[in-house]
Amino acid sequence: MTALPMTVRAPGLPERVRIHEVGPRDGLQNEASVVPTEVKAEFVHRLAGAGLDTVEATSFVHPRWVPQLADAEKLYPMLSGLPGVRLPVLVPNDRGLDRALALGAREVAVFASATESFARANLNRTVDASLAMFEPVAIRAVESGLRVRGYVSMCFGDPWEGAVPVGQVVEVCRRLVAMGCDELSLGDTIGVATPGHVGALLGALTEAGVPVSSIAVHFHDTYGQALSNTLAALQHGITTVDASAGGLGGCPYAKSATGNLATEDLVWMLDGLGIQTGVDLGRLIDTSVWMADQLGRPSPSRTVRALSHKE
Amino acid sequence: MTALPMTVRAPGLPERVRIHEVGPRDGLQNEASVVPTEVKAEFVHRLAGAGLDTVEATSFVHPRWVPQLADAEKLYPMLSGLPGVRLPVLVPNDRGLDRALALGAREVAVFASATESFARANLNRTVDASLAMFEPVAIRAVESGLRVRGYVSMCFGDPWEGAVPVGQVVEVCRRLVAMGCDELSLGDTIGVATPGHVGALLGALTEAGVPVSSIAVHFHDTYGQALSNTLAALQHGITTVDASAGGLGGCPYAKSATGNLATEDLVWMLDGLGIQTGVDLGRLIDTSVWMADQLGRPSPSRTVRALSHKE
Repeated sequence: MTALPMTVRAPGLPERVRIHEVGPRDGLQNEASVVPTEVKAEFVHRLAGAGLDTVEATSFVHPRWVPQLADAEKLYPMLSGLPGVRLPVLVPNDRGLDRALALGAREVAVFASATESFARANLNRTVDASLAMFEPVAIRAVESGLRVRGYVSMCFGDPWEGAVPVGQVVEVCRRLVAMGCDELSLGDTIGVATPGHVGALLGALTEAGVPVSSIAVHFHDTYGQALSNTLAALQHGITTVDASAGGLGGCPYAKSATGNLATEDLVWMLDGLGIQTGVDLGRLIDTSVWMADQLGRPSPSRTVRALSHKE
Repeated sequence: MTALPMTVRAPGLPERVRIHEVGPRDGLQNEASVVPTEVKAEFVHRLAGAGLDTVEATSFVHPRWVPQLADAEKLYPMLSGLPGVRLPVLVPNDRGLDRALALGAREVAVFASATESFARANLNRTVDASLAMFEPVAIRAVESGLRVRGYVSMCFGDPWEGAVPVGQVVEVCRRLVAMGCDELSLGDTIGVATPGHVGALLGALTEAGVPVSSIAVHFHDTYGQALSNTLAALQHGITTVDASAGGLGGCPYAKSATGNLATEDLVWMLDGLGIQTGVDLGRLIDTSVWMADQLGRPSPSRTVRALSHKE
């Protein structure tokens, strides 16, 4: 556990990156078996203890849709002893926002789609109708003093529609900003993006007046591209990167994998580049090994596997 | 099998990259069980059929050291029906070169180390003594009209020595160029490199007068960094990249993994960037799936797993 990357800075990259840890929400929501609330709470506490200052904690969706996160009301208060850690929660609609507000949440996120096909599949409505559903949620959240993050799925490719035009993504992003989102998370939901496409989308957003400081990237490793896409995003000024501890989130060996970028693989690169994150890689790996034990299967993160292997 | 990346070029990258496929040599030499010569021959033929124009075929080392490649004399003539495909072979010493010349090989490679510890472990001599051993081999190969590639192991980190000073790598590279190597392959043998370190080494080599066109990069995915390091190398003008079909080469799940960059993950990125390689990704994946069946275990390449999964 002593091997760590050598630090050699590269020109044009940020001094610091904020990692938006999505494991407890985006990772665990795809688990086949229900994880006990106490385990989830310990997971979030351990992640915070490893230095992650933003941990997406849970989702206030209807339990029918995501039974894995049906314990949000029980879990959220168990995280109150984490001062200084941002704990955003997903809210799909007005009812979800009510639940989040009742528990004192300070940050929420809505989950939009860049494509009609995925809006229909995931939200059962058109892109327009889904944005219309989110608008009063975002406005009321802002009025209540909350930060609002807008996820945008399928920003690069869509399994039904193929390549997603950059302009279509920009339009959804503009509308989310207009309704009060202070951060956008650009999702490569099926993992097909490559670095030139990343640069083109970020360039178009900047041109459309969306400040780069309000943009986060959310890459999936389905085709092994998440980290090189992240490097391209950093070179375009991005300073917020979504990742999932241990690569949690769906099965990495199936085509349908969500295959989130593993936080450890990201931290290895950022440590090597001398970019500050505040994360202690060793403690993070210990956390992912512990969580893998809870779930009964090894982490797909290469860094976790390399540094936790007992020889 | 129809999903392919969308092509969006990025500024400052090469138009074309030559992939130096190392699967049949670097990949298979670590296999626990011996692969039949006929399977190896079919593997090389299939790789060439997928459009790979440089396939490192085998190694003329003493069979005692690499029993997996003890059939080099039998295998090499089986590849004669591949016009236009470069088939370099590894030669460790004068005897190896004799064997390669006797079979009509047109390209050879020597395998140097940037560190004393690995030179001792792998070659049982000092860096100086190993270069002295390669020098007459390289000179005679050049006199015989052969191309000579010089591998340099442990260019970034070394398991015994930690971080490897850039100047130390440059010195070994200069000596390999001086003895007639027309190409150098910079190996991140334990996979610890990050993009800033890659840029620093390539910058130092250029400053030392080693032309970037004579440099290849050879990254390992032990910590998931191979593809982002490759992107950094392309941004520094590199146009030759080593990779192994299906990620063959050691167990990717052990700390000691060689964990070669998978050719498919590389081709996905290059296709997405609009960089020509001549490789047909679908045929390459079919080849790696076939080879995985021969070896009795799945490929660790994410692209192979994603595109070969039957749902």
